[in-house]
Amino acid sequence: MNNLLKGKKGIIFGALNDKSIAWQVALKCHEQGAEFVLTNAPIAMRMGEINKLAADCNNAKIIPCDVTKNEDMENLIKQSMEILGGKIDFILHSVGMSMNIRKGKPYGDLDYKWHHETLDISSVSFHRLLQTCFKMDAINDWGSVLALTYIASQRIFPDYSEMGDAKSLLESYARGFGYHYGKRNKVRINTISQSPTPTTAGSGVKGFGDFFDYASALSPLGNASAEACADYCVLMFSDLSRMVTMQNLYHDGGFSFTGFSYDVFKLMENKK
Amino acid sequence: MNNLLKGKKGIIFGALNDKSIAWQVALKCHEQGAEFVLTNAPIAMRMGEINKLAADCNNAKIIPCDVTKNEDMENLIKQSMEILGGKIDFILHSVGMSMNIRKGKPYGDLDYKWHHETLDISSVSFHRLLQTCFKMDAINDWGSVLALTYIASQRIFPDYSEMGDAKSLLESYARGFGYHYGKRNKVRINTISQSPTPTTAGSGVKGFGDFFDYASALSPLGNASAEACADYCVLMFSDLSRMVTMQNLYHDGGFSFTGFSYDVFKLMENKK
Amino acid sequence: MNNLLKGKKGIIFGALNDKSIAWQVALKCHEQGAEFVLTNAPIAMRMGEINKLAADCNNAKIIPCDVTKNEDMENLIKQSMEILGGKIDFILHSVGMSMNIRKGKPYGDLDYKWHHETLDISSVSFHRLLQTCFKMDAINDWGSVLALTYIASQRIFPDYSEMGDAKSLLESYARGFGYHYGKRNKVRINTISQSPTPTTAGSGVKGFGDFFDYASALSPLGNASAEACADYCVLMFSDLSRMVTMQNLYHDGGFSFTGFSYDVFKLMENKK
Amino acid sequence: MNNLLKGKKGIIFGALNDKSIAWQVALKCHEQGAEFVLTNAPIAMRMGEINKLAADCNNAKIIPCDVTKNEDMENLIKQSMEILGGKIDFILHSVGMSMNIRKGKPYGDLDYKWHHETLDISSVSFHRLLQTCFKMDAINDWGSVLALTYIASQRIFPDYSEMGDAKSLLESYARGFGYHYGKRNKVRINTISQSPTPTTAGSGVKGFGDFFDYASALSPLGNASAEACADYCVLMFSDLSRMVTMQNLYHDGGFSFTGFSYDVFKLMENKK
Repeated sequence: MNNLLKGKKGIIFGALNDKSIAWQVALKCHEQGAEFVLTNAPIAMRMGEINKLAADCNNAKIIPCDVTKNEDMENLIKQSMEILGGKIDFILHSVGMSMNIRKGKPYGDLDYKWHHETLDISSVSFHRLLQTCFKMDAINDWGSVLALTYIASQRIFPDYSEMGDAKSLLESYARGFGYHYGKRNKVRINTISQSPTPTTAGSGVKGFGDFFDYASALSPLGNASAEACADYCVLMFSDLSRMVTMQNLYHDGGFSFTGFSYDVFKLMENKK
Repeated sequence: MNNLLKGKKGIIFGALNDKSIAWQVALKCHEQGAEFVLTNAPIAMRMGEINKLAADCNNAKIIPCDVTKNEDMENLIKQSMEILGGKIDFILHSVGMSMNIRKGKPYGDLDYKWHHETLDISSVSFHRLLQTCFKMDAINDWGSVLALTYIASQRIFPDYSEMGDAKSLLESYARGFGYHYGKRNKVRINTISQSPTPTTAGSGVKGFGDFFDYASALSPLGNASAEACADYCVLMFSDLSRMVTMQNLYHDGGFSFTGFSYDVFKLMENKK
Repeated sequence: MNNLLKGKKGIIFGALNDKSIAWQVALKCHEQGAEFVLTNAPIAMRMGEINKLAADCNNAKIIPCDVTKNEDMENLIKQSMEILGGKIDFILHSVGMSMNIRKGKPYGDLDYKWHHETLDISSVSFHRLLQTCFKMDAINDWGSVLALTYIASQRIFPDYSEMGDAKSLLESYARGFGYHYGKRNKVRINTISQSPTPTTAGSGVKGFGDFFDYASALSPLGNASAEACADYCVLMFSDLSRMVTMQNLYHDGGFSFTGFSYDVFKLMENKK
Repeated sequence: MNNLLKGKKGIIFGALNDKSIAWQVALKCHEQGAEFVLTNAPIAMRMGEINKLAADCNNAKIIPCDVTKNEDMENLIKQSMEILGGKIDFILHSVGMSMNIRKGKPYGDLDYKWHHETLDISSVSFHRLLQTCFKMDAINDWGSVLALTYIASQRIFPDYSEMGDAKSLLESYARGFGYHYGKRNKVRINTISQSPTPTTAGSGVKGFGDFFDYASALSPLGNASAEACADYCVLMFSDLSRMVTMQNLYHDGGFSFTGFSYDVFKLMENKK
């Protein structure tokens, strides 16, 4: 390995099981010499297999955190610094949940209470994380913070529904805090816009399989895997990407800049 | 005048006083032959001079509406159709308020309850408006809906704080509903990203005057006025722009695509 | 009609036959009260039916112009001002030709002499037009100049080959001269990024029919027609869009901001 | 070091002296275990100190190449594969020259013969490089090609003049060949949009010093240095960024997404 993160301390949100991007990020960060704390929502921890991941990562500590609660976030940051013995160098935010999708409410019939919950969990949580760190001065100068997003923030994919809006808001927070935290502490903040990925959450979206194949046919390099995304996160956490901030970085095999490919037509014929 | 909106029926949100963009939009729509209903928040109505505007617009009806309440929105749409005698052809959404800015809370110390209120008033209100219309089938085929936004949604202007995030979310709703309402009824939905404008709301932002001059110096054509914005809204409401949808349209004298101008340097010297 | 261009003087490039967007623009500008000169390449004039169009437009004068020659451009501008009796208010640039596509050379085997010709005809011609006007001070203050482009400038559509590059360059000139001409004379310069359109040139591209259907299925409003594009050009030439400059304006039924639509899948099934 | 490029073979264009970004890229690639060939225009070689760089990089071979000549490009690729003993893994294109700027011709008075030379040297050279490799099948699967660009391709910086257009075209080629080479060989192609950098070429632009300070004041992290850019190039050449392609990657300390900063005002006051 390349020791790209040797001596660095981090926090990784959202590792549910080995299909999770966050799970792969944890494994790669471990390989590259980082120490980190794992966190997830209390309920996700019960469902998932995060203990197994922790064991594979030099017995990383696990701290439950409800990202919609200020006090949980404060506790997470405080404990993380105690456990890791100092300020944080990198954070991965991989958190999202759409109440309306889960409840079967379409885009033209959203329940707004649920919609605010979706925004709170999926987007405001990122601001809350950064604001908590900002107030506690918890991130080292030149630290790197990433959130995972999807191109539905910029173009419409109908089934992605309100999550597209949540991702737009998430990307906006990355720019906003990228400015303010950059000015004060040179902390850099970016989002990674990843190919559709067959995680537990992703696979649950209606028609995911067909859409996954469509995206792959349109992307010159095919869809990016969770492992490849984890590699890219490692790069963006490393000291070799210090001047990249406030960006939405497409990690998608070229999907975002491809308008058309005959492979889409071929795909359809093969499905017959 | 050009009769660009002859026979068209509309709803115009947000005319507080004659500095408001919405005020100018109402005057121009009236000139172009449209009939419409005016609406604003109950509290804004007490502060503003909307009755004067209504008198100048063929005694347009005024319907108060708290945009955070579903029932107010439903009432507005229902009454508008009764008053105007049929479905709606155009709507201007010019609504925004930042609780945290008003209360002096900086971007690194947001109160999240207020932040959700900011999002609810400034952004979710647009989805609520569209969803209410969608459910009531209240917009004629090829109707046109506009919301006013600002480039702070895409690039950071520190004093704009959480309103930049709110505008990002607003623009995302325009795309989302632009897809769904376009598919069902050919309704087109766009946002107009306007130059800084010395409205009552705008002028209240810290350092507005200096920033206004900076933006004007950077823009090859200078800042766009409220009147010019109203002209552009008329165009986008007319039948001559029917195939434009899901776009964020910069109406800003070229600001958005200018990286630098020596006039910025000159401006600073003149201020000495 | 709306008299949106009453008293305005223009130059319209590229009307070959009634399928041409420029042809429709001429008709609409005539309806809206404008006077203008028509121009095209000498060879295109022999093939096309431009005399018929001129007859329908109050006997508009026709001036041949090879857009790759400075002296032809100078002659065009000089004669136009003489014929129209003053400076110009609006110009449509609708010019493009790909030598390599015509000769069957794929993107990985371009002939660079032809490629420079493609750029010269399709892109540099726009700079040449603007520079000639700039030097001759031939455009009235607040004049409006448009060039037609296509989204292949920003995303890859493999069959569009080198024309995508030519359109990128064209859009860049619109920004560049939008700045310089805006600063000096308030002249505004924009490009319109139009849906695929079954013009004589468009239809000649390999697989145009399939692709046209694909684009239509993906666009919430379907593909924009040449007539609709002409309407939009009228708006952008009018005084009601004065502060819009340096923009690439998508006129495409929502194609550019739609990532996916099930109608693409349906389309394929129907083709079986 | 991290051995990020161990065993990789490359070609690096454009190292003139130790202020060149390409010079720093060569040093960093050497540190990371790569072997490569250096190349530059014959005339640049006479002026520069490339021999010193070659000595510091394990006696890298130097092959002169006029990038406007197909046969020079073919010779470069052929010789490089012979010297390095196989296909190429990474290439840096850092080539640009504006004839009109050099000759003092402003944007409104370009000489078009020189302009085509500018495009040929600065932009078409990148297509020629890729096409030559494509035909010779000279790049390994998953190879990575980068070109250096500047934000003037997307927004206007008046002094950058025709080079902004050249960079737009360059970025378009990266997308175009990113598609075609990606489909055939999984080769990924990106541009890096770097902060203004005090290279020999950059410093020669009129008013560079003032502009450099302005850009630094606007960027939350300040301007990115040539060394930092080289670090980022290493990451993009490595196997850890395999699914990133067809992108324009901003390496600019946040400049591209910052609309305004009070530090710009402060800067001006300090200059008094």
